[in-house]
Amino acid sequence: MEIEIATIGGYEEVGRQMTAVRAGSDIVIFDMGLNLSKVLIHDNLRTEGMHSLDLIDMGAIPDDRIMNDLEGDVQAIVPTHGHLDHIGAISKLAHRYDAPIVATPFTLELVKGELEEEQKFDTDSDLIEMEAGETMTIGDEGCELEFVNVTHSIIQAINPVLHTPEGAIVYGLDKRMDHTPVIGDPIDMERFRELGREDNGVLCYIEDCTNANKKGRTPSESVAREHLRDTLYSMEDYDGGIVATTFSSHIARVKSLIEFARDIGREPLLLGRSMETYSGTAKRIGVDFPSDVEMVGYRHAIEQKLEQIMNDGKENYLPVVTGHQGEPRAMLTRMARGETPYELDEGDKVVFSARVIPEPTNEGQRYQAEKLLGMQGARVYSDIHVSGHLCQEGHYTMLEALQPQNIIPAHQDLSGFSGYVDLASDKGYTLGEDLHTTTNGNIIQLV
Amino acid sequence: MEIEIATIGGYEEVGRQMTAVRAGSDIVIFDMGLNLSKVLIHDNLRTEGMHSLDLIDMGAIPDDRIMNDLEGDVQAIVPTHGHLDHIGAISKLAHRYDAPIVATPFTLELVKGELEEEQKFDTDSDLIEMEAGETMTIGDEGCELEFVNVTHSIIQAINPVLHTPEGAIVYGLDKRMDHTPVIGDPIDMERFRELGREDNGVLCYIEDCTNANKKGRTPSESVAREHLRDTLYSMEDYDGGIVATTFSSHIARVKSLIEFARDIGREPLLLGRSMETYSGTAKRIGVDFPSDVEMVGYRHAIEQKLEQIMNDGKENYLPVVTGHQGEPRAMLTRMARGETPYELDEGDKVVFSARVIPEPTNEGQRYQAEKLLGMQGARVYSDIHVSGHLCQEGHYTMLEALQPQNIIPAHQDLSGFSGYVDLASDKGYTLGEDLHTTTNGNIIQLV
Amino acid sequence: MEIEIATIGGYEEVGRQMTAVRAGSDIVIFDMGLNLSKVLIHDNLRTEGMHSLDLIDMGAIPDDRIMNDLEGDVQAIVPTHGHLDHIGAISKLAHRYDAPIVATPFTLELVKGELEEEQKFDTDSDLIEMEAGETMTIGDEGCELEFVNVTHSIIQAINPVLHTPEGAIVYGLDKRMDHTPVIGDPIDMERFRELGREDNGVLCYIEDCTNANKKGRTPSESVAREHLRDTLYSMEDYDGGIVATTFSSHIARVKSLIEFARDIGREPLLLGRSMETYSGTAKRIGVDFPSDVEMVGYRHAIEQKLEQIMNDGKENYLPVVTGHQGEPRAMLTRMARGETPYELDEGDKVVFSARVIPEPTNEGQRYQAEKLLGMQGARVYSDIHVSGHLCQEGHYTMLEALQPQNIIPAHQDLSGFSGYVDLASDKGYTLGEDLHTTTNGNIIQLV
Amino acid sequence: MEIEIATIGGYEEVGRQMTAVRAGSDIVIFDMGLNLSKVLIHDNLRTEGMHSLDLIDMGAIPDDRIMNDLEGDVQAIVPTHGHLDHIGAISKLAHRYDAPIVATPFTLELVKGELEEEQKFDTDSDLIEMEAGETMTIGDEGCELEFVNVTHSIIQAINPVLHTPEGAIVYGLDKRMDHTPVIGDPIDMERFRELGREDNGVLCYIEDCTNANKKGRTPSESVAREHLRDTLYSMEDYDGGIVATTFSSHIARVKSLIEFARDIGREPLLLGRSMETYSGTAKRIGVDFPSDVEMVGYRHAIEQKLEQIMNDGKENYLPVVTGHQGEPRAMLTRMARGETPYELDEGDKVVFSARVIPEPTNEGQRYQAEKLLGMQGARVYSDIHVSGHLCQEGHYTMLEALQPQNIIPAHQDLSGFSGYVDLASDKGYTLGEDLHTTTNGNIIQLV
Repeated sequence: MEIEIATIGGYEEVGRQMTAVRAGSDIVIFDMGLNLSKVLIHDNLRTEGMHSLDLIDMGAIPDDRIMNDLEGDVQAIVPTHGHLDHIGAISKLAHRYDAPIVATPFTLELVKGELEEEQKFDTDSDLIEMEAGETMTIGDEGCELEFVNVTHSIIQAINPVLHTPEGAIVYGLDKRMDHTPVIGDPIDMERFRELGREDNGVLCYIEDCTNANKKGRTPSESVAREHLRDTLYSMEDYDGGIVATTFSSHIARVKSLIEFARDIGREPLLLGRSMETYSGTAKRIGVDFPSDVEMVGYRHAIEQKLEQIMNDGKENYLPVVTGHQGEPRAMLTRMARGETPYELDEGDKVVFSARVIPEPTNEGQRYQAEKLLGMQGARVYSDIHVSGHLCQEGHYTMLEALQPQNIIPAHQDLSGFSGYVDLASDKGYTLGEDLHTTTNGNIIQLV
Repeated sequence: MEIEIATIGGYEEVGRQMTAVRAGSDIVIFDMGLNLSKVLIHDNLRTEGMHSLDLIDMGAIPDDRIMNDLEGDVQAIVPTHGHLDHIGAISKLAHRYDAPIVATPFTLELVKGELEEEQKFDTDSDLIEMEAGETMTIGDEGCELEFVNVTHSIIQAINPVLHTPEGAIVYGLDKRMDHTPVIGDPIDMERFRELGREDNGVLCYIEDCTNANKKGRTPSESVAREHLRDTLYSMEDYDGGIVATTFSSHIARVKSLIEFARDIGREPLLLGRSMETYSGTAKRIGVDFPSDVEMVGYRHAIEQKLEQIMNDGKENYLPVVTGHQGEPRAMLTRMARGETPYELDEGDKVVFSARVIPEPTNEGQRYQAEKLLGMQGARVYSDIHVSGHLCQEGHYTMLEALQPQNIIPAHQDLSGFSGYVDLASDKGYTLGEDLHTTTNGNIIQLV
Repeated sequence: MEIEIATIGGYEEVGRQMTAVRAGSDIVIFDMGLNLSKVLIHDNLRTEGMHSLDLIDMGAIPDDRIMNDLEGDVQAIVPTHGHLDHIGAISKLAHRYDAPIVATPFTLELVKGELEEEQKFDTDSDLIEMEAGETMTIGDEGCELEFVNVTHSIIQAINPVLHTPEGAIVYGLDKRMDHTPVIGDPIDMERFRELGREDNGVLCYIEDCTNANKKGRTPSESVAREHLRDTLYSMEDYDGGIVATTFSSHIARVKSLIEFARDIGREPLLLGRSMETYSGTAKRIGVDFPSDVEMVGYRHAIEQKLEQIMNDGKENYLPVVTGHQGEPRAMLTRMARGETPYELDEGDKVVFSARVIPEPTNEGQRYQAEKLLGMQGARVYSDIHVSGHLCQEGHYTMLEALQPQNIIPAHQDLSGFSGYVDLASDKGYTLGEDLHTTTNGNIIQLV
Repeated sequence: MEIEIATIGGYEEVGRQMTAVRAGSDIVIFDMGLNLSKVLIHDNLRTEGMHSLDLIDMGAIPDDRIMNDLEGDVQAIVPTHGHLDHIGAISKLAHRYDAPIVATPFTLELVKGELEEEQKFDTDSDLIEMEAGETMTIGDEGCELEFVNVTHSIIQAINPVLHTPEGAIVYGLDKRMDHTPVIGDPIDMERFRELGREDNGVLCYIEDCTNANKKGRTPSESVAREHLRDTLYSMEDYDGGIVATTFSSHIARVKSLIEFARDIGREPLLLGRSMETYSGTAKRIGVDFPSDVEMVGYRHAIEQKLEQIMNDGKENYLPVVTGHQGEPRAMLTRMARGETPYELDEGDKVVFSARVIPEPTNEGQRYQAEKLLGMQGARVYSDIHVSGHLCQEGHYTMLEALQPQNIIPAHQDLSGFSGYVDLASDKGYTLGEDLHTTTNGNIIQLV
């Protein structure tokens, strides 16, 4: 059976991920993501009403025209988790394919939200829930899709595996190797090791190289949680305002914030539209998340809530707000500019449970947000965070487990791949033979 | 009563700390430390037989000749903890003063070791044990010395307080604000707050500015411990060699290494002379430390032990060795050069539970050690560590607690003080008035 | 005679410089500058109509209320050169003093411009031109003001010297030691050495510490000029668009750009309001500057000019435009966004004859500007520049020349002073004795 | 005719360059270099007596065993210039091939020196001089070898071109685009443009990617020269010691040092074995180099010369010595340790006309050398240098000129190639099609 991999998007950047695997006449698409930075560099661009081709030209969504060169039928579109760089182009591209969207419940809910907000295209794909550990049949030539549980900075992330008669294709985006992930099960290393030992073994492993140039091993979420606990507990005696921010989609982190807020005698509140979207979804689908936390998404309601906080006493609350990158229009930045009813006083604490995404635009905005917070007298606690992506020792361990016949580095540009290529070369792979460093828009023939 | 502070050493560097406080006719000396980097820049210099004046000229030990300008009698020499930059000059300078050395038991044991190794000078000072929370009378003009428990990267660190009729002098070197320190009690913030509220309050606070240019808050040792646990547990399935290194004096870290080694089914071994010195001392004085761990200090015995490990199987052991900075002659570097019986194989793990001290010489040596380890096939896990020194938010909280009338930044150079001066200025202190940025060799008259 | 120095502004930052020297009953004020970054962090703030006290509260202009503590009469206000951080507060503060403004012709013209734009205050001070090398009498107690020629990134910069019966006060802001400065005379080191040898010598030297943490020596403008020549000549064969940007006030650099543009067969054009202001002023007062270069300041005229360029052929022109820091509304950034008639094509060259001022906000904006230029196909040549401020070896040489009895570091914060303090300490000065590290708002009594 | 490129060494590192081109049955080898860092990481290793295979195993010299897979006869070994990473393995590998070594006169002299020092192997290859602009016939199937003049940090560098019936193979290592190179002719861009326009055009371009991740354009040697002139002239009035160091092989820089030393009234002296080797060779073959400068290579003679300098007065001399990277045993480092008769005094000047090669080992050694110099009172002037390698805009211009059908990035690892791949992709090349990113030990079939 012929096996081909089309590297559609996310092979020259982190963002707009999309990969198609053809096994005989059956095709499965993994991820359809958005590169948000290509949108934000333009002033005030709104994508909801934009056409796919314009977004492709901007480099914002994957250029899927190469799909014409793959001979077969798309049997499934499989987003691996709910981050925008993996689901953000579904509303623009999925309508072109006659195939269901298969994902874990949380991811699927977020996809639904994306489809509802879309104004230009209608997508009527079936939405099929599948849990980690489950499988489904793909086509009628003997392929099967399996979801292996992984751990990432969002819940219900999986690594899909396409079992083919020629061996397994493991699509390894995005994960870290977390044995104590706060919410959900640990990464299923046992299953990965089994895949490596099976008869046909792993024909190809497509890997998340985000951190492939970083030495060592990504710590568990339990380390970030302990760091966060230690930080918030150290503020227990403070009787003024404490505000926290983190990635809205990082449900495990938000959960820790909620719990530690209560441990130190404060009522947590989730404020901001994306906070409500992600945490509301998590609550709705019944993950292990505090069901009784208040969430406010709309600006007017947030203003009212903040007024109430000021009246009741800031010392009783811990608002968790948007703005971890210093985004100019996010809640925290507006607080820092004094544009909300919440008044920061000398000595108030602001906790960034996030790192600055290392790009000068972000760094400039975050710097300015912190300056403005400082001008209000606030004290800033930054970088209480761990990455969601494997570093080099995680990659090493994955290769030990899977023993893949072929490797395709993904989720980076060439410079980002270089650490991975060094590591895989040390383990005996050869660039251009079984280690396929590539770019967007190529087709790699494996069998 | 006249109160003067002599800033003898450690006000232009991190290293060779020494400060004298005169209250009326009574003087107390805090710390007598060594600046090791001033020794190491010279090839093969051995200090044991050197004269004080030569070491002063090199900038290696404090220039205590300014003590002649302080009119009074030295009543006590008080090392705050057992690091060399605080006790390393006692063997060279203490003999000039007719005063007892007062310290916590662990610190005092390390001082004894220093005095025994000294070849040039004899010191016959009394050695007086005093625990955190205890006090002793100083002179007969109403002064009292108190030890307040603090938390640092070595056990039994204290902040000494000299109570005078004019108010308390708090000598604040070296600490972080740790509420879950793995060994020993949390930092005694309650006592610091009491000091701030007492009648005369805090006349002067001398503060550890090592990290004063770093934002945020230093995490607890519990965060490093969780990081280390996560790291070692992730190696549980590995059946080859695992080696770890850390600061020999960091007893809490060594303890964690020992415990997690056993958790993953390996026998820990402490190898190297300084490993034996510090951990052996800890064990002897009965701190909460595993009593049954094997320690080997002499090279010949270490070689034998490593041979035994190779015979028994590396997978049964976890040697904890010296060499965390890539020091050319330390155990780990020699392992990396293949100069010991312990053979590193492809895939073996090396854990640096330490950060590189940020100075180009260290960075070069550590880089080279890691290169050599890599040439043997070893996989390196670095930076599993937290600092032992307060960052800015810790300083902020200390000022809130103590409300000192005067502040003297220490344990840095002027550039290192700058972040502290900014912070103290924000809190209302004025440079040159109540905020005394100074250099080595000055006397500050407070009353 | 009593001599006092009031360190009013620019002793905790680079920006809003202001220093007053009192000699007996006569006072001279050196510089009255603006800290532009304190204005720009607020959205859309226009300072022309703002009150001094509001600007003082923002930290934008010097807090000159300390002048009340100086007993004497202000005899002159002396801006040393035309940069905003030295003249930008004159329009807000000078009206409070009954004293003439004394400056070199170019500086004085720029001061006039500032006064004309001011909307809140009227200043009717006399404006007195004085050239480098000239002197004027100050008061009637024997003081004299002298201008010593120095070299900086703007023309006609001087170091004013106040000769008092107690010795000379040398106000050393801002300069580099340039023996081949492209426009104007070399720095007058001979005169500085004379001052050091004179009877009373130099009582006090106030020094520009902008680069005091940088090793080595600041290169001459001739090095930047050769770098620029080499860069532009390398483009001689290119037949598309070339655009350059630099500091508008950097007349020598603009002159080099004009000359090399012509050398490679292109007509230079200066576009943008500040380009017209500075270069127009330079031309008007008759410095050695190409008199026949076209300057266009108003947006509408610029648009027309750019349309004409597009019609005539971009290959015939070299526009020199504003936007060297990627300022969002500057000409170059607007070109990069495609908002002007000038269309960038694949391969067009953009020359930044400037460095990015190292602050995250700037870095973010500049990064974004370069990204946008790249999206248009432009090729970017950056950092063709040398600093206008002394580095450490220049400071060393100045101390050798002047042999001052007292030193006051200025034009930085404490962290920025630290390299200077180290250097001065190496030369035998002692912090707190003859080396006066201070903050804004202090008075240092020298005699 | 079949055309193949064997990428033997220098495709995963900067160092041990070696590439073979087969055109039909004729093979030409370009460069046979050494990776010195792989030697230096081992203590006290001397390579003169070592066997090739051991050096190959260490990664120190190219693994040329792949030459067995190329069917044809080696007709010439062509080192492009005299740096060790291009000629340092000739003495170990050339004896295996029955082919002449063809190079420019200066390069050939340095090769001779290498062959004379070799103790393990005898090489009896013919040594053939060929100047830039000249050609020679290769084999009898219509191939021709041409030398195109380029500019680099060593004199007489060329880019060899192998003209084949299928088009030209341009071997583009190492160069910058210098139109004013101080010694020798400017880069022959005219010839490169002709090659791009010829009938068959350029079949393949192998490019020096050392600086491919650096933006902008490498300045001309004239910029370094002006910087050096400005620096040394600024010391004209100093009447103590001045010492300079630079790359011994950088003849143009050494020439500038000699000339400016004389301009400021000092006698230049070249001290150190490699200084004598390179400059002596340059003088002997008659390049435009001061013929009357004294060179001393042997340690005993150097000691005597330094004693003479001390007797005559340091103010009359400017020694140019080895040690620009702080190498522990080089002349300058020994001066810094006080191990030579030349005594450094407070205020003496040390000029590093070199940059630190950015690798932690170098950085550590250089830092230590500067610290030791500072302890002697010396003032350090660093980084008076420009790179010898193209940055991105040079690469852009080369692609414009040559219009190659295929490109092979070289002289870096994958991370280093990434900037080049981005640039070439922008110009329309496609990775894996006509843009061949590869590793050591591969054969690329072009025709």
